[in-house]
Amino acid sequence: MPMNATTTVETMSTEEAGRLLMGHAYLGRIAFFDGAGVHILPVNYLAESERSVVFVTASRSIIDAVSHGADVAFEVDDSRSLFHSGWSVVARGHATEVTGDADLRRLRRGPLRSWAVSPQERWVRIDITEISGRRIREH
Amino acid sequence: MPMNATTTVETMSTEEAGRLLMGHAYLGRIAFFDGAGVHILPVNYLAESERSVVFVTASRSIIDAVSHGADVAFEVDDSRSLFHSGWSVVARGHATEVTGDADLRRLRRGPLRSWAVSPQERWVRIDITEISGRRIREH
Repeated sequence: MPMNATTTVETMSTEEAGRLLMGHAYLGRIAFFDGAGVHILPVNYLAESERSVVFVTASRSIIDAVSHGADVAFEVDDSRSLFHSGWSVVARGHATEVTGDADLRRLRRGPLRSWAVSPQERWVRIDITEISGRRIREH
Repeated sequence: MPMNATTTVETMSTEEAGRLLMGHAYLGRIAFFDGAGVHILPVNYLAESERSVVFVTASRSIIDAVSHGADVAFEVDDSRSLFHSGWSVVARGHATEVTGDADLRRLRRGPLRSWAVSPQERWVRIDITEISGRRIREH
């Protein structure tokens, strides 16, 4: 089998994974199940804490999926360099639509306003229950 | 509601989505369902055609999920710039483990050899049945 002695995969601590999730510049991917199949969608997100991320979307499929709450997976990575070295963080959690007026007003004033949105936009929050990360290193 | 007149989201043709999948430099994310929940995993992939991608993994969860074939979602994007402009391609298809000796010998000679692998590695192929893409433009 092909082996390559110059790269290793390390599991990072949940603390480090949380820090990377918080510090990453917005782009993540959400995976969800709609009853018929698995979907994946890139989203610009904001980490409210190491256990909570929000994003705004006009995607009908994700809005329908989370309308009654949905268990989802969420991923961020440093993709510029992951082919040889880099990192990725994968979280799992429960996604719900944000519906509280005060919550929505606060979110709409935040940095995600600058993303492409439409009148069909909805805000979704993921409450993270599990997080893990991997780092690829070259030697 | 927040609106921003300076960005638009365009759906691209399936031909363009296929070209981007083929031309992209390896990093993608696979989403799959394991019977208990949705998972997402970054992988270095190789597009064999606009309808077929392969990757090598030592992840027990994806190997188990595809051992009898699994419907999955797959995503690539140009994440350096997607916050304000960029593109993403999402595919759906059927994933199976590659088990043919000649097929494996050919894959092991290819460019994915240089990725971090382990003796537990398995090769997985996704036969794509649906592909779509979006482009974000700034004006």
